[in-house]
Amino acid sequence: MKVHETLDSLITPALLVDGDVLEHNLTTMAMALPGARCRPHIKAHKTTELARRQRAIGHVGFTCATTREMVGLAAAGLGDDLLLANEVLDTKLLSVLANLDARVTVAVDSESTIEAAARAGLKECLIDVNVGLPRCGCLPDDAGRLADLARARGLEVRGVMGYEGHVVGLADRVEREHQTAECMAQLARAHLGVGGDVISAGGTGTFDCNHFATEIQAGSYALMDTTYGALDIPFQRALSVLATVVSVNARDGYVVADCGLKSLGMDHGNPSIDGATVWFCSDEHTTFSTDDAAPLPDVGTRVQVWPAHVDPTVAYHERMHVVEGGAVVDTWAVDLRGW
Amino acid sequence: MKVHETLDSLITPALLVDGDVLEHNLTTMAMALPGARCRPHIKAHKTTELARRQRAIGHVGFTCATTREMVGLAAAGLGDDLLLANEVLDTKLLSVLANLDARVTVAVDSESTIEAAARAGLKECLIDVNVGLPRCGCLPDDAGRLADLARARGLEVRGVMGYEGHVVGLADRVEREHQTAECMAQLARAHLGVGGDVISAGGTGTFDCNHFATEIQAGSYALMDTTYGALDIPFQRALSVLATVVSVNARDGYVVADCGLKSLGMDHGNPSIDGATVWFCSDEHTTFSTDDAAPLPDVGTRVQVWPAHVDPTVAYHERMHVVEGGAVVDTWAVDLRGW
Repeated sequence: MKVHETLDSLITPALLVDGDVLEHNLTTMAMALPGARCRPHIKAHKTTELARRQRAIGHVGFTCATTREMVGLAAAGLGDDLLLANEVLDTKLLSVLANLDARVTVAVDSESTIEAAARAGLKECLIDVNVGLPRCGCLPDDAGRLADLARARGLEVRGVMGYEGHVVGLADRVEREHQTAECMAQLARAHLGVGGDVISAGGTGTFDCNHFATEIQAGSYALMDTTYGALDIPFQRALSVLATVVSVNARDGYVVADCGLKSLGMDHGNPSIDGATVWFCSDEHTTFSTDDAAPLPDVGTRVQVWPAHVDPTVAYHERMHVVEGGAVVDTWAVDLRGW
Repeated sequence: MKVHETLDSLITPALLVDGDVLEHNLTTMAMALPGARCRPHIKAHKTTELARRQRAIGHVGFTCATTREMVGLAAAGLGDDLLLANEVLDTKLLSVLANLDARVTVAVDSESTIEAAARAGLKECLIDVNVGLPRCGCLPDDAGRLADLARARGLEVRGVMGYEGHVVGLADRVEREHQTAECMAQLARAHLGVGGDVISAGGTGTFDCNHFATEIQAGSYALMDTTYGALDIPFQRALSVLATVVSVNARDGYVVADCGLKSLGMDHGNPSIDGATVWFCSDEHTTFSTDDAAPLPDVGTRVQVWPAHVDPTVAYHERMHVVEGGAVVDTWAVDLRGW
């Protein structure tokens, strides 16, 4: 999809990607964790065209959260090494994966998920290990048993996976490094019982703290958000939502822009607007006031709204516009949404 | 779109609509506010097939939040009386509306929005009045001047609109009725200066408190959510997200289901699960524990997750499955999403 428009002609709300910042983020990661050292997580952007850029800069493998992301990347010829980093039980979906023209590895953390993968004809798996985040993953001491079980069911066990998701957002670097090391000690214990070449872990917040994983599953680094933007990591916010001021209330000192709960992931809280204070969001609106007694913008003014959380923001949008030097240079379909 | 599946065969996460409860909600509203007394708000479900049912039970007009909702309803032959209850400035979009095979009315609250509507060739408008919610709408005392301006620009002014959105969720009925009356007193003052037959206001929470509006813009009543479900109104929750337990951690006493931030609107907080306590949601997961020391469900168990806010939940999904007697009897495309 390629649509050339001026920034002024975009229908709002519109997802914008700063092309230069994206380039900076991709380059910075590829220099820090070249090639297979980073396995970009597709869930953060759900956009094949962006994945192509991550592939072009050297990252051969991808991490996916859904089978649809896997199918889309395979169809686009990006299936060199696809990891489904979530447990899936649906045999229909797993069979689709087994028949992709791609190298497919799935996460398993129980007898049931191993059984489902084996029945679907999948060939390779990672043992997903719980390293402290209360989510999926087997107990570290159970990993070896599950690996044996997977091998007995004919699966190749490539190694282990363990996501320190409760650590990636810690503001204090020393604490973040310390807790990452503790998590990876658990993953190491699991790996002893499992074997295999792959130790897959980490995220954008621990990309340079996690020295144990063979590959880092970073996703947010490409587009970033205000939550991650508060950390001391060298990635910058590339993603914003362009909105239009549609109403001004001079008496009460606020204006209303036409982006809201259906164009912004809200689990990390309100979005931000430079030089302004966001009051609240409604379905299609964001109410805000200007800081430091700055004049209110007029009706029709375009504003850039910074989402607090990139992943569920992108998932609301059909497309993202790449902007360079104030011009829309490309439009990418957010084509890997849904289930 | 009609896909007959068993409930067990649905890919999760899946949006479920209880057909009997939906019927109850639609009937209850149609009896309380028959025909044009209710102008159902499409933003709550974004589903043409559901709008057809609202039309079939007697509601001739619809309220829309986006131009795409307007275009979709017109294309489906549901364009008898469509109100765009939001301010839109984009001349391209407004021109599309002006050329629909439908009766189109748009909300205006400023000289700019009147000018945009007139330039696009639109014929009818409502003066949107601020009645206390810090969002769109002109000051009540400015409504008459704007109506004059709109008429001078060739627009037919059908009346006024004013949404008491800060009141619809008040738990105490007496307070809700009292504040609704105060809001409507402001709308009445505006209406004196504007004229016209239409006084459009209200929502699901004030559908039986607002005795001044000629029509109520209720949306959530059809599907409902846990937030509205806490009020003393006769509508029941029809909408849930079906999820599958994909991981169990018996040591720490929780399980993980495969629905999360990308299938649930989170601005009103966490979703609910009957007999369980939700710990938190991640992009594709909800972690929860069972109440009263009930045994944890096994991997593969289906769970029904109740969203806290219906509108931004539906906007994440491509389809909703209508369930009656435990069977999927219909599947409707959520076809009015996006902008």
